[in-house]
Amino acid sequence: MSEQPRTVRVAILGAGTVGSQVIRLIHERSADLSERCGAQLEISAVVVRNVHAPRDVDIDPELLTTDAAEAIDHADIVIELIGGIEPAREYVLRALNGGATVVTGNKALLAAHGPELYEAAAQADTDLYFEAAVAGAVPVVYGLRESLAGDKISRIVGIVNGTTNFILDSMLNAHASYEQALADAQKRGYAEADPTADVEGYDAAAKCALLASLAFHSRVSMNDVSVEGISQITADDMMEAARTNHVIKLLAVGERCLDDLGNEVINARVHPALVPTGHPLATVDGVYNAVIIEGESAGRLMFYGQGAGGAPTASAVLSDLVAGASHRVHGGHAPRESTYAHLPIIEQGMTRTRYQLRLRVHDDLGVLADVASVFARHGVSIHSVDQRDGEPGAQTTIVIATHCAREADVLAVAEALRQSDAVIDVASLLRMEGE
Amino acid sequence: MSEQPRTVRVAILGAGTVGSQVIRLIHERSADLSERCGAQLEISAVVVRNVHAPRDVDIDPELLTTDAAEAIDHADIVIELIGGIEPAREYVLRALNGGATVVTGNKALLAAHGPELYEAAAQADTDLYFEAAVAGAVPVVYGLRESLAGDKISRIVGIVNGTTNFILDSMLNAHASYEQALADAQKRGYAEADPTADVEGYDAAAKCALLASLAFHSRVSMNDVSVEGISQITADDMMEAARTNHVIKLLAVGERCLDDLGNEVINARVHPALVPTGHPLATVDGVYNAVIIEGESAGRLMFYGQGAGGAPTASAVLSDLVAGASHRVHGGHAPRESTYAHLPIIEQGMTRTRYQLRLRVHDDLGVLADVASVFARHGVSIHSVDQRDGEPGAQTTIVIATHCAREADVLAVAEALRQSDAVIDVASLLRMEGE
Repeated sequence: MSEQPRTVRVAILGAGTVGSQVIRLIHERSADLSERCGAQLEISAVVVRNVHAPRDVDIDPELLTTDAAEAIDHADIVIELIGGIEPAREYVLRALNGGATVVTGNKALLAAHGPELYEAAAQADTDLYFEAAVAGAVPVVYGLRESLAGDKISRIVGIVNGTTNFILDSMLNAHASYEQALADAQKRGYAEADPTADVEGYDAAAKCALLASLAFHSRVSMNDVSVEGISQITADDMMEAARTNHVIKLLAVGERCLDDLGNEVINARVHPALVPTGHPLATVDGVYNAVIIEGESAGRLMFYGQGAGGAPTASAVLSDLVAGASHRVHGGHAPRESTYAHLPIIEQGMTRTRYQLRLRVHDDLGVLADVASVFARHGVSIHSVDQRDGEPGAQTTIVIATHCAREADVLAVAEALRQSDAVIDVASLLRMEGE
Repeated sequence: MSEQPRTVRVAILGAGTVGSQVIRLIHERSADLSERCGAQLEISAVVVRNVHAPRDVDIDPELLTTDAAEAIDHADIVIELIGGIEPAREYVLRALNGGATVVTGNKALLAAHGPELYEAAAQADTDLYFEAAVAGAVPVVYGLRESLAGDKISRIVGIVNGTTNFILDSMLNAHASYEQALADAQKRGYAEADPTADVEGYDAAAKCALLASLAFHSRVSMNDVSVEGISQITADDMMEAARTNHVIKLLAVGERCLDDLGNEVINARVHPALVPTGHPLATVDGVYNAVIIEGESAGRLMFYGQGAGGAPTASAVLSDLVAGASHRVHGGHAPRESTYAHLPIIEQGMTRTRYQLRLRVHDDLGVLADVASVFARHGVSIHSVDQRDGEPGAQTTIVIATHCAREADVLAVAEALRQSDAVIDVASLLRMEGE
């Protein structure tokens, strides 16, 4: 039943950290890959900005070109690793429109223009793969598109940005300030000179949009994800979290939930959260990523591994390459965009989570009663209160954990507390994950 | 580009814990599954031993039948959930030979007759799926067959048997003896009346064979896996493990390693092992399963989730069902058996791991020197020695951890120690996992 091995021509756009590893591995594993695809993979072109730039891997100079169009038009499979929106979008569309299979690791492109790209792939009856776009080597895209295709996903929650995870780790372990930890991450090459996309949560939000789309069979774009980064997290927050046996992690969350009318809606968000130290996500450190997927039948699954770096990301690219090549040889295709559920996005402010508020208050008799009445007035139920011993007449700290409450209500509570005479300030307001 | 939904007829063999969940979910998720497959799934028959037996779910009495052949011959997809070798093998072969897609959760059948079944599937150009055969809802089969198809797997290590994991947990947490813990597991329905397959490691070995075959693109059968169960583990062993910050877990391990001539060989084994409490596998408790896959490029990935139970296993079956139905509608096929690497199995005794030996010795001067000389004589290098304070002249305990050593050499050391006058007995001999 074995087919005559044919040749599949692969054009690689970009020869940076990931691209150079992909090129190296296609050469090194040539025999293995050919057995697994049923086809010989031949790198037909490597598109770069400057063919004379120094490279980490040996690339046959004949393959190097700046002519993307030519390279794309003569390839069966195009691997896009240049990142950013343009010209990546133009190249990917050109490839798909021409019937080539596309493998990309470009989360920003997908989160912004996914539907257009999926549509082009479907029109040309070809495949669009993007395992490398989320969580590096961790196969969450396969997990959602295929391994859990028979389940009803209720929730995904994960750590999908290594840069912020590294910074939060440093703040926790080295008691560094946010600024020190960021500078250290930049020095080590874990954060970019302009760290905005990472630290403000946009990178995680793009991944969150992709995962939520897959999980809930609906279109979720970057704009549908509410985003809060880590730049407001202080060394104090980390220390206070530790006091209550929590760590702070930047989480990407996608939930299927019910609105006030009982209709299913999607809630997708990225924000720092207090995670109990015993929670599986609490121990995910450094540049590791982890995603928990909760299926109605499967229960809680966790996928864990390296979320970035040349080799791990190249591993994801190569798997997509094998799948894409196999489909070209044996027929069939990758799962197409699946949006049949058409779930709407939850209204702003309606998301329900648990919160922890840390208040500095005057240590007077009756302060707790005043504070508690603010919560009651806004319909926010208190789960626990931890009042620190203070000198009478001086200031003290109250840490209040709420039950699940609407975001809008909790923000109103915080605002009312800030206005209250009893309260000096709201030192922190953080969401809580886990029980 | 959407196809006219067609009907895919599904015959289910077995309506037990998993089968009844599968039937329920096919009904409940009918609309979703049809969107995801591009086909309406129709249960065409449910094959049982006794059509009048009481059932957990409502099944249309018209579908219930004892006529497996008739049911198989009229189905597009056959889901085999009866377990055991015969008649499961006969039914699966009949289905494959007739061109039906087969979804099975039968690890024993696959570990014993996998090549024959794969061959039948290839001959008839149809698909054989078995995600449910390993680790319940945890998608390790997808992980190895697809998500890591582009990587070179160096090692897999996992906890893949919930029964033994539950028993070991009870021994650790409730300080129960093995016999008490087993009886408790049986009472709760986690262990069978005849627990041999679980506690002696055969169930884990079947899964180990499947995972190693997929990981190393070679045939690994049940007989290629060296197996040691947990029935020899004592409450003492658990307590002693805790003293050195370890837990004891039953591990399934598959490794690509080099033999003395430098040739790649496969080493597949199931045995209890000491796992450091900080290791990701140490905290996998109860009926959860976890598998770590180490890829040359991906690095260390972990998959974690519920390893057994009706609903989680049904989730895996349904994913395979969606994949199988999609292929029938859209063309293409699942990955076929991949054995091109043809790696041989390591020779017995040549496996290299770290060991911990716990010796009861006479607390005399020079005992440690005697003991150490036995290790040296057999070429086993000692990593650490922990000698307990004892009354001079009385007996004491020495705990010795080795560096990586050949199994045959360590067994020879243990035998020599038992013969030695200085040593009262070798109280335990356990492999060590992790750093």
